[in-house]
Amino acid sequence: MPIFLNASNAEFETRFKSFLGMKREVSADVDATVSEIIDDVRENGDAALKKYTLKFDKLDYDETPMRVPQQELAEALKGVDDETIEALTLARDRIRSHHERQLPKDDLYTDPIGVELGSRWTAVEAVGLYVPGGTASYPSSVLMNAVPAVVAGVERIVMVVPSLGGALNPLVLAAAHLAGVTEVYRVGGAQAVAALAYGTETIEPVAKVVGPGNAYVAAAKRQVFGTIGIDMIAGPSEVLVVADKDNDPDWVAADLLAQAEHDSGAQSILITDNAAFGEAVSAAVERQLKALDRSEIATASWQDFGAIINVDDIYSDQTLKLINRIAAEHLELACENADTLAAKVRNAGAIFIGRHTPEVIGDYVGGSNHVLPTARSARFSSGLGVLDFMKRTSLLKLGPDQLRELGPAAIRLAEAEGLDAHGRSVSIRLNL
Amino acid sequence: MPIFLNASNAEFETRFKSFLGMKREVSADVDATVSEIIDDVRENGDAALKKYTLKFDKLDYDETPMRVPQQELAEALKGVDDETIEALTLARDRIRSHHERQLPKDDLYTDPIGVELGSRWTAVEAVGLYVPGGTASYPSSVLMNAVPAVVAGVERIVMVVPSLGGALNPLVLAAAHLAGVTEVYRVGGAQAVAALAYGTETIEPVAKVVGPGNAYVAAAKRQVFGTIGIDMIAGPSEVLVVADKDNDPDWVAADLLAQAEHDSGAQSILITDNAAFGEAVSAAVERQLKALDRSEIATASWQDFGAIINVDDIYSDQTLKLINRIAAEHLELACENADTLAAKVRNAGAIFIGRHTPEVIGDYVGGSNHVLPTARSARFSSGLGVLDFMKRTSLLKLGPDQLRELGPAAIRLAEAEGLDAHGRSVSIRLNL
Repeated sequence: MPIFLNASNAEFETRFKSFLGMKREVSADVDATVSEIIDDVRENGDAALKKYTLKFDKLDYDETPMRVPQQELAEALKGVDDETIEALTLARDRIRSHHERQLPKDDLYTDPIGVELGSRWTAVEAVGLYVPGGTASYPSSVLMNAVPAVVAGVERIVMVVPSLGGALNPLVLAAAHLAGVTEVYRVGGAQAVAALAYGTETIEPVAKVVGPGNAYVAAAKRQVFGTIGIDMIAGPSEVLVVADKDNDPDWVAADLLAQAEHDSGAQSILITDNAAFGEAVSAAVERQLKALDRSEIATASWQDFGAIINVDDIYSDQTLKLINRIAAEHLELACENADTLAAKVRNAGAIFIGRHTPEVIGDYVGGSNHVLPTARSARFSSGLGVLDFMKRTSLLKLGPDQLRELGPAAIRLAEAEGLDAHGRSVSIRLNL
Repeated sequence: MPIFLNASNAEFETRFKSFLGMKREVSADVDATVSEIIDDVRENGDAALKKYTLKFDKLDYDETPMRVPQQELAEALKGVDDETIEALTLARDRIRSHHERQLPKDDLYTDPIGVELGSRWTAVEAVGLYVPGGTASYPSSVLMNAVPAVVAGVERIVMVVPSLGGALNPLVLAAAHLAGVTEVYRVGGAQAVAALAYGTETIEPVAKVVGPGNAYVAAAKRQVFGTIGIDMIAGPSEVLVVADKDNDPDWVAADLLAQAEHDSGAQSILITDNAAFGEAVSAAVERQLKALDRSEIATASWQDFGAIINVDDIYSDQTLKLINRIAAEHLELACENADTLAAKVRNAGAIFIGRHTPEVIGDYVGGSNHVLPTARSARFSSGLGVLDFMKRTSLLKLGPDQLRELGPAAIRLAEAEGLDAHGRSVSIRLNL
């Protein structure tokens, strides 16, 4: 049974609060194990990678080398049917042209007193891209992570992927080729993250690592954070669909299930102003669930975390507040005044506007990124983009006149803060 | 004795690598204590804050309330001399006008096939600003953290500051008033961070917390990360000065010491192409050290972590590589062709160009932010700015025609990834 909430009920606020606070992941405590693996890789380099890969992936680098020869990426295209290659290429091109618009401009200027200052953006030199093994190995995620890095101007894009017995998913290799990945290694888990952070004889270190992974990978990313940069630690996916009664309940149900099939911890929420419509969607979900390949996962997600919230008015301030408090990774507005509502929403990773924009389009070929803030973190963070692969340097240049003008205030503040060497570094230049 | 390195020596690479890897902080393991404090605040709210504040700050909220009345901020100005208020106001105004240039533009457009898409920026609704107590309580840091938040459009800027026995630094309150802080509470440590993340009866929760703090504060920030956003975890400060022989050694020595006086873990590095000049700077440092108020701290920093690196040529590719590998928080270019060199540097938090731009100007009145990436993290991250207080939402809108055009590729990729509910959410709309 999904959760049914009614915003008019007296106990709604209490129930909604506990709904927002629901924990949807079991976070296994693997910190100690991960810390050992990282230390081992730092100390023993390739030898440690060899040991862990033999143990976890049943792969011996003496038989199949760690590095995937770059030409195998292009060759992987041969193993993929034309229609899929076309789809991947369309996705790549749309992601690229959308992300090119995110390239920041440098801002160098001279202020009224003659101080030259500004901000300059440069690409991170090298990034690592973690790709999970098995069924969670998605070619679309390779595109979404690698293309913005290429657009940013990152020179080395190093993909690591665990490969059971050495076998790799040709779709993932093909996507890596189309995206512009420059190096691929058969290595996964915490040991792969450690290698990216500290380097080994075979793998040169990178400055940042991105991409999803299991509990070990997430813990390793947290532990190396600071030594190198990391992207967000993504939680299970979620969608919030806001729908009026003029929708086909089957369309809305299909959208809720597209999210639910990802993970038993995924969450699908419907907000509607029509109780009968909500019931129709609920019935459609039950019907469609039976026919799904991943029925077991989707059922668990819907039963444990699915929710239908009835409101009086989709366009009221009260509903807008609920939407902003949920701060969904994906927000679908399947309602008449979707544009107006979209303009008012503040907290959402991505907004899908109107009845003909199922969230799935954004997963693949919309052009915007599908790596988005989960678990209410859209209140304070953004989806992956070009800026995640760049950094900003401040520039400041004073001549003697500007130093004479600004120096005394700096000396005053240094004194107020009790930092006399700070004051001296200015006063010595002004003969004060 | 500081470290002397010569880039022409055979063993330079080995010594430089170990120099880069030096640990300059003792990170006390306070995770377990912090975790208990956070749980306690989550469960018991104000009562827990009262208990910890009595214990750590010798302050009883029954005598001096936790919240500082907002009018006390304005009144604090009366306790500060005019010259300091003018200096703070100059700093505030210059920080504000520099950061206003960082405000991002929304990008909403229609692509060639009629898909409406784009990115929209909104401010984080509420942020917390941690201000340390005691001598590390700097009014300039209040400005540097709060002004970009105000510029971003953050409505609630909540400052927390520990106050031994209830006493607050009037300079910090004055800076908070000038910056536009909206709430101030007398509470510090892990308990303050927990209150900002989870809220109590008195403190409404925020979506992100920024600002420096001790080991407990840093551990608390790491632990609440995900529930709310955090800024970087700053390490000890550092400066790299690149200087040719045509400098006054005393000026350069003063700049090195302005960094060293911050913290015994701070690091001051000189790169020069003239060994005699390097020795002159070293002698000047020793001389100036004796006269400093914070001589003990600066001496420890210079003895343990200070470094003078001799290179053949300041403008060579080899030196540029060293500069980029050091990736200093602050980079001072006190050399003839400083502009040319600045344009080539890739990894630095901020660059101070020419002989009349001591780094200290950037600490106070330059206009750029003094919260900058430490410990080589300029390789992958930026100084604090307006974007840290905003987030980007992606927008996507298709009509029936666009869905017909893009839908089949999405269905193909969903099939390739084994996600049939994804495929259905598109095909059901296309009657496929």
